[in-house]
Amino acid sequence: MHSNLVYRMTLINIYVMVMFMNDLMSLLSGLSKYATIALQEDDNLSKNLIKSGKKVINLTIGDPATYFKTPEYIIEEYIGALRQHRTNYSGPLGVLELREAVAKRYKRMYRSDFTEEDVMVTQGVSEALMYLNATMIDKGDRSILFRPYFTPYLSYFKLYGGNEILECYREEERWGVDVDSLEAVLKRHTSKKIKIKYLIITNPNNPTGTVLGKKTLKRIVDIANDYDLLLISDEVYDEIVYNGVKFASISQFAKGVPHIILNGASKNYDSTGFRIGFVIIPEEDDISNEIKSKMKDFGSLRLSANTPSQYALVEGMNNVNQHKKAVGNMVREIEKKVNLMSEHINYSEYMDAVPPCGAFYIFPKINVKDLKMKDDKEFARRLLEEEYVQVARGSGFGEADHIRLVALAPTETLTLAIERIERFCKKHSRK
Amino acid sequence: MHSNLVYRMTLINIYVMVMFMNDLMSLLSGLSKYATIALQEDDNLSKNLIKSGKKVINLTIGDPATYFKTPEYIIEEYIGALRQHRTNYSGPLGVLELREAVAKRYKRMYRSDFTEEDVMVTQGVSEALMYLNATMIDKGDRSILFRPYFTPYLSYFKLYGGNEILECYREEERWGVDVDSLEAVLKRHTSKKIKIKYLIITNPNNPTGTVLGKKTLKRIVDIANDYDLLLISDEVYDEIVYNGVKFASISQFAKGVPHIILNGASKNYDSTGFRIGFVIIPEEDDISNEIKSKMKDFGSLRLSANTPSQYALVEGMNNVNQHKKAVGNMVREIEKKVNLMSEHINYSEYMDAVPPCGAFYIFPKINVKDLKMKDDKEFARRLLEEEYVQVARGSGFGEADHIRLVALAPTETLTLAIERIERFCKKHSRK
Repeated sequence: MHSNLVYRMTLINIYVMVMFMNDLMSLLSGLSKYATIALQEDDNLSKNLIKSGKKVINLTIGDPATYFKTPEYIIEEYIGALRQHRTNYSGPLGVLELREAVAKRYKRMYRSDFTEEDVMVTQGVSEALMYLNATMIDKGDRSILFRPYFTPYLSYFKLYGGNEILECYREEERWGVDVDSLEAVLKRHTSKKIKIKYLIITNPNNPTGTVLGKKTLKRIVDIANDYDLLLISDEVYDEIVYNGVKFASISQFAKGVPHIILNGASKNYDSTGFRIGFVIIPEEDDISNEIKSKMKDFGSLRLSANTPSQYALVEGMNNVNQHKKAVGNMVREIEKKVNLMSEHINYSEYMDAVPPCGAFYIFPKINVKDLKMKDDKEFARRLLEEEYVQVARGSGFGEADHIRLVALAPTETLTLAIERIERFCKKHSRK
Repeated sequence: MHSNLVYRMTLINIYVMVMFMNDLMSLLSGLSKYATIALQEDDNLSKNLIKSGKKVINLTIGDPATYFKTPEYIIEEYIGALRQHRTNYSGPLGVLELREAVAKRYKRMYRSDFTEEDVMVTQGVSEALMYLNATMIDKGDRSILFRPYFTPYLSYFKLYGGNEILECYREEERWGVDVDSLEAVLKRHTSKKIKIKYLIITNPNNPTGTVLGKKTLKRIVDIANDYDLLLISDEVYDEIVYNGVKFASISQFAKGVPHIILNGASKNYDSTGFRIGFVIIPEEDDISNEIKSKMKDFGSLRLSANTPSQYALVEGMNNVNQHKKAVGNMVREIEKKVNLMSEHINYSEYMDAVPPCGAFYIFPKINVKDLKMKDDKEFARRLLEEEYVQVARGSGFGEADHIRLVALAPTETLTLAIERIERFCKKHSRK
């Protein structure tokens, strides 16, 4: 009995010591653990395979500029800005002409009537997301995200102490929004007087490629109105839609309701490496104004986004003919690639994918239980080790038993990748 | 008595209602109030003056690229990168060749022996500061900053809940560090077992223009070593030194002590609008490694910094001859401007400035008590209203009764500005 007590005391002592040492040794903040993204976790393994001579097919990064050259007319404008030495700071909100071009673009495409004063240029949408969460989120604050989510939505939200409410895009309804379930959740929280800071949707969606219909958008806006909810809509893929689908922007329906639109040049203008995003806060209510003002403060703290690339994108947006040609060509190519992959995937007995209508991702379900494997993380790692195909695991987007594939590489590469995935599944099948 | 009670109850009710309304109406997070920078607070006033035809002299923004053209050899490389369509994402850490160039630069200039693996490219030093604080700071955490400080140091630190310990650069000792006072503060905190997360210095300094000597740096490193303190040194102006002073980098003395160096292309390479900064974490101890790894996570979340500008700066750094010529010319010009302004200022009976030896700021003391004015904030606002000269108030850098002037504009403009400031002081003198 006595020795048992000593044993227990010793265990407790060791435990306390280890905790104490951890505390002393780590300089990291508690919340910094949320700063992760599942996309690149196998990069070191991938690098080593490449070093040893293996040809790795990497389908993890949604970077059109790797496969489609940034349009020449934009490159020429960029060069022109450099020749004019437009290389100084361009202010917290960004180049005036670009903010005007963004307002004009939304007017042209969606009949929106906001002005350049409602537009801020950011260093990609990621910077906008970080600033928006820093602007709004205190420890324990609640917001509504949908899963599968674009990973940084959750990371930046939780970095500021946010406590997510995860609604689901429903795979069985082509990854659509279940508006009734959303309304039920809001009712529940309202009855408990729990404030919800914002609701964020991604349209077209990453990782599912879904484009939300007008009816759904209208209902979401109505709900936001009814429950005093700030709406955020990430529309960074708004011109990359295909398979006969027409895109509608939240700005077409949200007049009078506080909302924020995220967009950027990376995808539609095929210029990921420019790092230019946009935050649009079109309304003039108190909530919109205070967020706009605070976002400008964040812009002031970092002085400026890249300047010459902003001038390049003024022409990028205003030269509608050139742009239509460029984005038209790109989208036709993407449509072919996505459809080819969907077809291959749905031919397989191990995978099922909702055919996307927007962006350039496919998010097939993989029945990991039918394979001799623990989960999608093991699936992704071993697929890379054994077949040299690198994909992002679904659990990184909040959706286990899925993988995300980027449909931008040349067709032969994509076909080869699917063949290898198929072979890999067969090899490890429990059937 | 009864009516008094009713009166009190009513007051309490109104108070509670107002608090509740504030809470309901504001979506802002509690900590977001720290996201401010004093530099641009009079920008709207300035804009209106310009609109009404006034010629405003703006001495608030330290942007060399507004006055000195970014060197042609760097512009040509930037154009070359665009012609080669280097416009895709360049990874969380940045372009390998640029990280190698940064390591080579530090080896060449300071005999440092770190490698490209210790270098991360950020979207300016500001992004590095935000990520470092997000990486390390929990609510209530303590760090040592010196005042006057570059405003974003404090803003980003407090945004994550940090609780600053403000040591002073001593104006009476040419804005040097009082190492004894620093050690006393550390002793006091150590005896109370209060952990201090980091100590940050700016060398050369913004806003004072001071360059810390080797002796001081060595003592700071010793202290960091003795008290287990992570050192951060912002060396973004390390080539902009003059008046016979030689700059020494913390990396020359901090071997074996965990430390982080911040630097960037904005000032030395006269390319503010590129938005390229560097975080260097040279050591391999546990603390350095965990911070390095977490910083990479933050890099992954935002995918990339601007890509073509990084390729431009590879040549920018590696072409030592061209660079020496460019930075040499710029620094000689800055030296003349700074000295001219210092002289003018010290000629005035209302102002006194420690003559700077680095960067391009002058930080004169203004005895506001001798003027019919409340504080330096009123001074800055009225100087703009009455004499059309925009300066940054010292209290924005934590040091009341001072103003910060940027010495980059043409000599005639700078002289005119000083004349107007002098006239303004005379006009409002109590003497």
